Amino acid sequence: MTGNRVCTLFKIEYPIIQAGMVWVSGWRLASAVTNAGGLGMIGAGSMRADLLEEHIVKCKQATNKPFAVNLPLFFSELQQQIDVILKHEVPIIFTSAGSPKAYINQLKAKGSTVVHVVSSSKFALKAQDAGCDAVVAEGFEAGGHNGKEETTTLVLINAIKNTVQLPIIAAGGIATGRQMLACFALGAEGVQVGTRFVCTHEASAHINFKNSIVEAEEGDTLLQMKKIGAVRLLRNPFALAVKEAEERGATSDELHTLLGKYRAKKGMLEGDLKDGELEIGQVSSIIKDIVSASSVVKNIWEEFNQTLASLNKVI
Amino acid sequence: MTGNRVCTLFKIEYPIIQAGMVWVSGWRLASAVTNAGGLGMIGAGSMRADLLEEHIVKCKQATNKPFAVNLPLFFSELQQQIDVILKHEVPIIFTSAGSPKAYINQLKAKGSTVVHVVSSSKFALKAQDAGCDAVVAEGFEAGGHNGKEETTTLVLINAIKNTVQLPIIAAGGIATGRQMLACFALGAEGVQVGTRFVCTHEASAHINFKNSIVEAEEGDTLLQMKKIGAVRLLRNPFALAVKEAEERGATSDELHTLLGKYRAKKGMLEGDLKDGELEIGQVSSIIKDIVSASSVVKNIWEEFNQTLASLNKVI
Repeated sequence: MTGNRVCTLFKIEYPIIQAGMVWVSGWRLASAVTNAGGLGMIGAGSMRADLLEEHIVKCKQATNKPFAVNLPLFFSELQQQIDVILKHEVPIIFTSAGSPKAYINQLKAKGSTVVHVVSSSKFALKAQDAGCDAVVAEGFEAGGHNGKEETTTLVLINAIKNTVQLPIIAAGGIATGRQMLACFALGAEGVQVGTRFVCTHEASAHINFKNSIVEAEEGDTLLQMKKIGAVRLLRNPFALAVKEAEERGATSDELHTLLGKYRAKKGMLEGDLKDGELEIGQVSSIIKDIVSASSVVKNIWEEFNQTLASLNKVI
Repeated sequence: MTGNRVCTLFKIEYPIIQAGMVWVSGWRLASAVTNAGGLGMIGAGSMRADLLEEHIVKCKQATNKPFAVNLPLFFSELQQQIDVILKHEVPIIFTSAGSPKAYINQLKAKGSTVVHVVSSSKFALKAQDAGCDAVVAEGFEAGGHNGKEETTTLVLINAIKNTVQLPIIAAGGIATGRQMLACFALGAEGVQVGTRFVCTHEASAHINFKNSIVEAEEGDTLLQMKKIGAVRLLRNPFALAVKEAEERGATSDELHTLLGKYRAKKGMLEGDLKDGELEIGQVSSIIKDIVSASSVVKNIWEEFNQTLASLNKVI
């Protein structure tokens, strides 16, 4: 794409970025997306430093093109993760869930590109001031942990476009070329796609989880647990138990107890659809198949171009 | 717009429709939007039959171009409202909040066009089967009463485009030409704009309410009262009281008592920013001025075209 700052920044062919997600995005998915011309990303949020190192090494063996690591900035092992990232000179780092300010110099020490994930204009401005190279603007639709403002992608990208000069990568609710083009109309120069890539052969999500996304209908994901950190959950017995608890006014402590530990791993990696926590995006309802990661890139890109051509015809 | 089915259906110049809203959209706003080349709409949701008749008559005096009436299908006076609409041969009727099936033959008896407002693919299909001429697909971002699925405009329009053949009018989160183009990318052929038209000179909203929209920031509207019918409220002492009640698990009865009666009129028409109910869209955060209705139409249309031209340059 001529003049597209996201392609230039990452040295990629298509401005389609695979989101780094807990339990589902290891080296297989990341390298497949990168080899297809997008930007693949290892999700370090569910990896201790030694496992992260293994995934980085394997990803480098599987592709010689650029890939990224997503690094949530809240882990007790954060410094060890950073050390591994620096040791292997990962070219692109997406930070999230915290402020990049304290880490950016360290992360850029070996020439890496640093992108921060934000859910509001205020945080986008902070990321720009901190020296980030781009921002991911993630709307209410996204799976996983979301901003408390509940601003949707349609409103958020337009608002951030009015606020910062940095390249904007839109995230939340994007699985199709139509949705990608919509985000470009709003001012984005790239898209970050999560849920659609979970439903690929290369994602390490359990097949039960993949199938449950394919079967999901409108209204089957809801933003829950707002008192202890909002997260979008796919409807299952666990999510319904959370809903019931929230409706009767459960406290933060009760929600923490209900959540317990390792539920995301149990659901997303081990396929326990009853007791597991299934974090996934609202766009699940329009995903109807499990395909290869390269088809996802190809299909989004083709529909993006076809839609733009058809818009030009109508207007 | 050549080949645009929404322009053809309504006999209008631009596929920009002003939402019919309670307390804020009478004949002044409707005729101003219609005269500017869009489709203006009287919101019958806050009008008894005699007041509705007065607005229809005045709207006809103020414009000789097509305008619409929005008719929520739950009023005790519904039949009297319908009688007035039929008597004056209102050319376009937007039904909402109910099923159009029982009323469509009556409403179409004098050749009117009937459009139904939906918040899911399932309801869009029902509207198509009932014989509606188009659907308004309204996302989570919208002000007023919203679908329980919480599907955002970015996901909803794409989903409905995959489901029905009817022309789709996107609503919820649209105040700019960028957002209009985004909705066209998703498959819409028109947009329905509410909040942006509330901040016009012609809207009958109280000036205090208009000013509070202009001052709103991201996160200042939230979908509340889900137990008794979700409604998006602008943050004020009343909305905060609702939030506090919901967080402690207030029952439907408690919420009904807290809401009481006439709060929407008190807030939106009479300007009581403390005790009034202020129903408004999430896009409030990017609206920064109060202008004329014709400027809204002009600005959205110009930005829509400029954005499309700039997209073509980048790609």
